[in-house]
Amino acid sequence: MNRKLPFASDYMRGAHPDIIARLAETNMAATGGYGLDPYSEAAKAKIRAACACENAEVELLVGGTQTNSTVIDALLRSYQGVIAAQTGHISTHESGAIEACGHKVLTLPHTCGKISAASVRGYLRDFHADENRDHMVMPGMVYISHPTEYGTLYSKAELRELHEICAEYRIPLYVDGARLAYALACPSNDVTLPDLAKYCDAFYIGGTKCGALFGEAVVIPDPDRIPHFFTIIKQHGALLAKGRILGIQFDELFKDDLYLRIGEPAIRAADRIREALAAKGYELCFGSPTNQIFCVMENGKLREIGEKVEYSFWEKYDGDHTVVRFATDWAVTEEETEALIGIL
Amino acid sequence: MNRKLPFASDYMRGAHPDIIARLAETNMAATGGYGLDPYSEAAKAKIRAACACENAEVELLVGGTQTNSTVIDALLRSYQGVIAAQTGHISTHESGAIEACGHKVLTLPHTCGKISAASVRGYLRDFHADENRDHMVMPGMVYISHPTEYGTLYSKAELRELHEICAEYRIPLYVDGARLAYALACPSNDVTLPDLAKYCDAFYIGGTKCGALFGEAVVIPDPDRIPHFFTIIKQHGALLAKGRILGIQFDELFKDDLYLRIGEPAIRAADRIREALAAKGYELCFGSPTNQIFCVMENGKLREIGEKVEYSFWEKYDGDHTVVRFATDWAVTEEETEALIGIL
Amino acid sequence: MNRKLPFASDYMRGAHPDIIARLAETNMAATGGYGLDPYSEAAKAKIRAACACENAEVELLVGGTQTNSTVIDALLRSYQGVIAAQTGHISTHESGAIEACGHKVLTLPHTCGKISAASVRGYLRDFHADENRDHMVMPGMVYISHPTEYGTLYSKAELRELHEICAEYRIPLYVDGARLAYALACPSNDVTLPDLAKYCDAFYIGGTKCGALFGEAVVIPDPDRIPHFFTIIKQHGALLAKGRILGIQFDELFKDDLYLRIGEPAIRAADRIREALAAKGYELCFGSPTNQIFCVMENGKLREIGEKVEYSFWEKYDGDHTVVRFATDWAVTEEETEALIGIL
Amino acid sequence: MNRKLPFASDYMRGAHPDIIARLAETNMAATGGYGLDPYSEAAKAKIRAACACENAEVELLVGGTQTNSTVIDALLRSYQGVIAAQTGHISTHESGAIEACGHKVLTLPHTCGKISAASVRGYLRDFHADENRDHMVMPGMVYISHPTEYGTLYSKAELRELHEICAEYRIPLYVDGARLAYALACPSNDVTLPDLAKYCDAFYIGGTKCGALFGEAVVIPDPDRIPHFFTIIKQHGALLAKGRILGIQFDELFKDDLYLRIGEPAIRAADRIREALAAKGYELCFGSPTNQIFCVMENGKLREIGEKVEYSFWEKYDGDHTVVRFATDWAVTEEETEALIGIL
Repeated sequence: MNRKLPFASDYMRGAHPDIIARLAETNMAATGGYGLDPYSEAAKAKIRAACACENAEVELLVGGTQTNSTVIDALLRSYQGVIAAQTGHISTHESGAIEACGHKVLTLPHTCGKISAASVRGYLRDFHADENRDHMVMPGMVYISHPTEYGTLYSKAELRELHEICAEYRIPLYVDGARLAYALACPSNDVTLPDLAKYCDAFYIGGTKCGALFGEAVVIPDPDRIPHFFTIIKQHGALLAKGRILGIQFDELFKDDLYLRIGEPAIRAADRIREALAAKGYELCFGSPTNQIFCVMENGKLREIGEKVEYSFWEKYDGDHTVVRFATDWAVTEEETEALIGIL
Repeated sequence: MNRKLPFASDYMRGAHPDIIARLAETNMAATGGYGLDPYSEAAKAKIRAACACENAEVELLVGGTQTNSTVIDALLRSYQGVIAAQTGHISTHESGAIEACGHKVLTLPHTCGKISAASVRGYLRDFHADENRDHMVMPGMVYISHPTEYGTLYSKAELRELHEICAEYRIPLYVDGARLAYALACPSNDVTLPDLAKYCDAFYIGGTKCGALFGEAVVIPDPDRIPHFFTIIKQHGALLAKGRILGIQFDELFKDDLYLRIGEPAIRAADRIREALAAKGYELCFGSPTNQIFCVMENGKLREIGEKVEYSFWEKYDGDHTVVRFATDWAVTEEETEALIGIL
Repeated sequence: MNRKLPFASDYMRGAHPDIIARLAETNMAATGGYGLDPYSEAAKAKIRAACACENAEVELLVGGTQTNSTVIDALLRSYQGVIAAQTGHISTHESGAIEACGHKVLTLPHTCGKISAASVRGYLRDFHADENRDHMVMPGMVYISHPTEYGTLYSKAELRELHEICAEYRIPLYVDGARLAYALACPSNDVTLPDLAKYCDAFYIGGTKCGALFGEAVVIPDPDRIPHFFTIIKQHGALLAKGRILGIQFDELFKDDLYLRIGEPAIRAADRIREALAAKGYELCFGSPTNQIFCVMENGKLREIGEKVEYSFWEKYDGDHTVVRFATDWAVTEEETEALIGIL
Repeated sequence: MNRKLPFASDYMRGAHPDIIARLAETNMAATGGYGLDPYSEAAKAKIRAACACENAEVELLVGGTQTNSTVIDALLRSYQGVIAAQTGHISTHESGAIEACGHKVLTLPHTCGKISAASVRGYLRDFHADENRDHMVMPGMVYISHPTEYGTLYSKAELRELHEICAEYRIPLYVDGARLAYALACPSNDVTLPDLAKYCDAFYIGGTKCGALFGEAVVIPDPDRIPHFFTIIKQHGALLAKGRILGIQFDELFKDDLYLRIGEPAIRAADRIREALAAKGYELCFGSPTNQIFCVMENGKLREIGEKVEYSFWEKYDGDHTVVRFATDWAVTEEETEALIGIL
């Protein structure tokens, strides 16, 4: 189908083979709808265990933008906005889904996709000190992504600091884990699922980019945090009738903690590619240690590569150069990796 | 898994085996995301052909509520509402998804789930004659479902009449086809896919309840009807990253016009069950000729049946009786049907 | 300017002369904006005293639709709707302002504009008993108007019953008092301002139709009921920069309890007109005891009257007759009343 | 009432005496509601004449935030956002009113409150060249304020350039004229009302800050630009029942072109104050030539001034200094101006 090497994104292929096998195996069983089925129950139990958070509410949604707008709308009051990096997915590439729910995205400057506790603290302090604050959008929560859109990672210490500032101002901290498996598989990551459950008020464990056909598992450590979340999900068009299809996928992803390992091939391949790029003299960008690789390419060379490789345009660097992204996924093969390196 | 007979709904099982096989077969191919893949292209071409509408825009979404709120929001201006039956799915069981997008559902009385062209005409005429109309919600489109929530069908003549009144007032007609396959397989139905393309401004071909794991194919016969529909889909959280999963499913559903036949077992089973119910003296309700069977049950008998059969509560009939629904699906077996009849 | 007799509505004239005089007298004083001025403070204190509710939050808004949509949006969570009569102003003549804020109006049948505690109780009980309730819009508050759109009044006993059922389901009761002065001036009314403060979670004291140029005073007996109401008002475009103009008006309306008496001339005139209509054999409608008079007119006679009187069309009665409304206001003169009676 | 010198804002006093007199004089006349009265008609005719735009639709609304959110929501499609300066009123001090209507404010860097045609052009060009544009918020209009929030002015040439780039991309240009009278009275302003009608798709002529008790006159040069604007106004809670109160005010403001001159005393006073500040060695900021005066104050001196003068905090300058704003209005007296200068 796709003769070029598939490094454009981490959602170019289907699902982990175990998922496909299980879908086939369970296909004709009849169950209740809307996630009220034994597969979903089993998946949720496994996720609670993996997060060491036995009381957590876990809900399985279909996609990332849908999950972000549903959770953020659920966490905010009508007059509140969400703090995010200028480069946050909700700030840039969700077609205004947050604003469509009535909420402003309050952007902070970023460093390689990350926002610091200090800048969040400064924003909150300034807001509450401003004599015009009642005429402004009240910051009602903080959104970060881990890994970020630039592939970078928060450390456990950074996450804890963000948690502390949020707790001080009594606003929730929410983590977008669209690519969480690639953080968990990364040697330099020290944020575990139990850490997320400890420091966040809500987060989601990404399936779409991490081995599922689709699906994102929202974890709400304190189940009283969002009353009537089921209705909110339905209202947002985010309730899958055959919720079992999500349950089956996450049940497989968390069987024997597969999710903790599923990103490893992607990280190994990405590290190999980064090494090769550096060796060939390319400038790497943003310091991503995960499955997204950013580098500067001379435009002529890029055209040449583009004939054999699918990659993503990231941004213009200068008149002659471009920042591009190569993404590896859970299914990348050594052959693909070596073929790419050969071409670079 | 489910030892009771599965007649609670038409979304209790997985997908048509051909779909599962094709998902497995294509699983490791790499393609572009967001529906820009060859499977989706092929599915859309087949749907256009089946609708005899070669210019139609076809978009594949995930679920019914999502599809309704996305399409309705796309068709209406901010100050307009949507006319629907009081029993329409958008009026009752979508958790206010239409209102969440800012639009009022303007309800009309129904007859067995249907609204008549006469009542739509009366509503539109009265609205435009009302000297307070500028203080009211302008009716901006008409929503019907085919089959309706009560399993009933519009005739081609009724559909054409609705089309004509909508055309006269220059507002679009939209058909929710969540269970469309069961209409198409029903001997008493005379509305074809090309008829829908001819008489509607938008409609969707339901996959979730008609043989897919999930998915609804929106058909917009005049592709200029909704500019920037892709962005609207994304904004509503309704864009599937691996859009191919939808493409593969609809490509299978429309291969050799499978979709036109897939509902037949359900209709045959439903007819058998209705016949048996009538023979046993039960009162059938609403006159549904499709895969939903409504009848009145004495409560004691119902409890007994409930031990062996999954059914849906519909509404209270009187102190001693209940209206219940049995739903058959594309995968119902003769054994299941006979077993149910034996129990009734 | 207007040579016809002005009985079309109760907002055809300016304001009580004391208000105009006070606006002139205070015109060049400089004060803070946004209601943070001594006139507004004084008005709020007088309103709290009149309501015998010294802790109440009182906010002064400009108009009725604005007030309804702001208060209702403030009281509801994103997934909740508001219960109202089918004839409630928010259901019919606010151009979808409630839906524009994302909330469904859940309508109940009415009797002369009123809903009963029994029907509210039935609705709430049925909702919470419905196994599909999580797919429906949760009723989050009750809206009534006093007087209603049909000029009728709730008794104190009826109001208390509504309060009790709301308290039982822990949802707020909100009263739209656009024409409250005409209730307070009506001999058959037994609901006082302190009663409203006791039985409602929020209500507004109408100024626009009751002697002000414009303005509605929202009273929230428990000031913790709506956190950040100021910001919500601003967000809804409902915050008047020179809030003092509202303060001055309500300060005058509540000086020496003027508001409790200001509707009296309107009620006297309306009673005279109703008496005359009955004497002349007209059929009176809806049993309104307040400043709105509804009766059936033969269409030929109506055309004749229409040449000399401004009235409101209410609804078609039959092919030859129409239900019309005459409204009196605080400023109606005996001359106008007698002139109208002479013409009828 | 207010013993300190009133330089905190330009909405601290009532209205031009002619307006108060006219309100008193017309008070007991009876007219139709909702702006369908002869005063409003007369006001609109005068505004059309002053704008040399005889076909313009003119609508009279109550306040600035209300006007911005109503007009912007009317001009945008559901998936579009509005380009504005980071310092634009809609970006900062409207409590998220634009987002509450579902629209993102797309901010551009500013120079003293202004955005340039070049930066708008760059934004639009980059957006339309971005391969991810369908996942982003489409820029659907441009918002500027004249004078800006920093008191600065666009030149006619700059306005025309913005018009041209908007026309090229077929998106409307909207001007917030909350303080327009102070531009029109400013010697360095070369943008006239007819220029606004020529180069904008919508703009509003501010009343609240320019001599009215309240009120903003929206001018839509091409009346087909916004169908059903009346309903949109109502839906936004922005329709005044006694619309005549707006009509009377604007009729007075445009009698003998009063509006063109009403800001003159404010400009004269502001120029005097700026001269005095410069002479005393204060650093003036942002280059405002209109009725807002910005300067840097040492904090000790500021406390001293604050005992006798009401001013606005603008922003922190450094640890010891603050940027403050003094605002003059149409009613400022020479005595007040000299008293302020004496204190500085």
